Amino acid sequence: MKIFCAIKLISNEKEFLLKNIGNYEVIFQDELTNNPQKYFSDCDVCFGNIPRTWVEESTKLKWIQLESVGYDPYMSLTNQKVKISNLKGFFSIPVAESAVSGILSLMRGMNELSLLKDKKEWVGAALRPSLRMLEGSNVLILGAGAIGYQMEKLLCAFNCVVSFYDKFNPEAQYSRPEELTKAIPEADVIIGCLPESPETIHLINGERLSLMKPTTILVNAGRGSLIDDLALAQKLIDGSIAGAVLDVTPKEPLPEDHPLWNCPNTILSQHTGGGYEEEVLDKVKVFLKNLQPYINNEPLNNLIP
Amino acid sequence: MKIFCAIKLISNEKEFLLKNIGNYEVIFQDELTNNPQKYFSDCDVCFGNIPRTWVEESTKLKWIQLESVGYDPYMSLTNQKVKISNLKGFFSIPVAESAVSGILSLMRGMNELSLLKDKKEWVGAALRPSLRMLEGSNVLILGAGAIGYQMEKLLCAFNCVVSFYDKFNPEAQYSRPEELTKAIPEADVIIGCLPESPETIHLINGERLSLMKPTTILVNAGRGSLIDDLALAQKLIDGSIAGAVLDVTPKEPLPEDHPLWNCPNTILSQHTGGGYEEEVLDKVKVFLKNLQPYINNEPLNNLIP
Repeated sequence: MKIFCAIKLISNEKEFLLKNIGNYEVIFQDELTNNPQKYFSDCDVCFGNIPRTWVEESTKLKWIQLESVGYDPYMSLTNQKVKISNLKGFFSIPVAESAVSGILSLMRGMNELSLLKDKKEWVGAALRPSLRMLEGSNVLILGAGAIGYQMEKLLCAFNCVVSFYDKFNPEAQYSRPEELTKAIPEADVIIGCLPESPETIHLINGERLSLMKPTTILVNAGRGSLIDDLALAQKLIDGSIAGAVLDVTPKEPLPEDHPLWNCPNTILSQHTGGGYEEEVLDKVKVFLKNLQPYINNEPLNNLIP
Repeated sequence: MKIFCAIKLISNEKEFLLKNIGNYEVIFQDELTNNPQKYFSDCDVCFGNIPRTWVEESTKLKWIQLESVGYDPYMSLTNQKVKISNLKGFFSIPVAESAVSGILSLMRGMNELSLLKDKKEWVGAALRPSLRMLEGSNVLILGAGAIGYQMEKLLCAFNCVVSFYDKFNPEAQYSRPEELTKAIPEADVIIGCLPESPETIHLINGERLSLMKPTTILVNAGRGSLIDDLALAQKLIDGSIAGAVLDVTPKEPLPEDHPLWNCPNTILSQHTGGGYEEEVLDKVKVFLKNLQPYINNEPLNNLIP
């Protein structure tokens, strides 16, 4: 059995992988100088995300352990004998912490204070009436999955009233788009953490943005396509919504001339929400843990539907 | 009975006060053109903080409702017949939210991301290994009062292990300075929210700063005198502690040439921690609520010891 390692590892992470993987041959993509697809096509297992075409053109591949939660590039593959597992749940704690951090930054003025420190400018007491409290806020979370539930856990400490929109999870309060439309005007904070599907693209369109209160903060910690980004930029510039915390945008890096760069009360966290020091080493551990059932021909964890 | 209003109110706050105060005469300090102490000396009640000397020189004054939690300027007054009540507990929610916001800002990179947005610079994935999670952190809180307990409540949602240092609250795990010294090297986050007293001045001195881990984040949400600020600046520049969130500093505004302005991983929140939109109106409500027992000669809320 040959394993193709598409995820980029630093030396101690490679050492850890090799030390724990047994006698299987591992090909590290970043050590190949040319034609990586040729090496890939000879492998049974892949750890990391590779182009969809490689998967479809491979005849040997049996399993991919993705290094992401999102699997939209691999939906409806022609090559249906390949098993694919994702990192479901892996990022819920860091992503939820980043989302709450972004919301608090806007409410407690931390983003503005960072800029003031950079300019060595003291404003002090005059800032106080512009601050808000998260305490008791009405929060609407789109996506009742691991990330959404982790956010709920954190927000409950702030006495927030949390409700969910989710088409598939029967525990969510709202499951139909019309119900979402009705819930939006009540929310102080709206957080998107939905996977991408044809139905989630621009679910937050200009019309739904217009229903938000001028005090609403909109967060996107899922997929950039959820929100009509140009309509959002206009609302932020108008002041018709209070702020935005965007971990994801439709294009990443965000193009230099994109209006979101100039929007007030906007945090662009540059798709860092899932990051933390031991992130990649922990991904190696997840792969190694899932390799055991693969070898033993037992059911894999977190197979995508 | 005459009431001296030293707290600065905007028009709707004055209206609210006058509408609810009954027939008592109110003198607003900000409407006086000269010699406010003369008007003050003719009043029975004061709402807001005035110079200590005014209190000591007054013969008529019976009660001051402070607009702060801190009452150190009024300790050991010669004029002992004056009752003084403070705003104990009033700021615990906003101050705790600001402290957690500051800690998360440093851990999740939000302060750096604010500066990157300002410069329209995309770094993205390269930031991820520099991020940390608050989840499971060991947090040492100096001061087991309303603010400390509110912080504990928020931090518990992040599965933090919280312990307290407090000389007077028997529920605190540590009460002696030697115990504090021993607890410091274990803490990932250390939060100061102690009132000022001779014993708290420079309680966090150079020696105790040297005991902190290079990953420790130090927060001060109490009084600026708690920390040796020059020693702290050196530790931050050295990288011998990971960061600081300072709502208070020994001098405010922080002098232009103070080294803290140039320290990395440092949030200076400019004593805004207790602020929020309805802050002053809520202070008026606290005063009005305490005025009733005063009029009825019943015990006042939150008298200072």
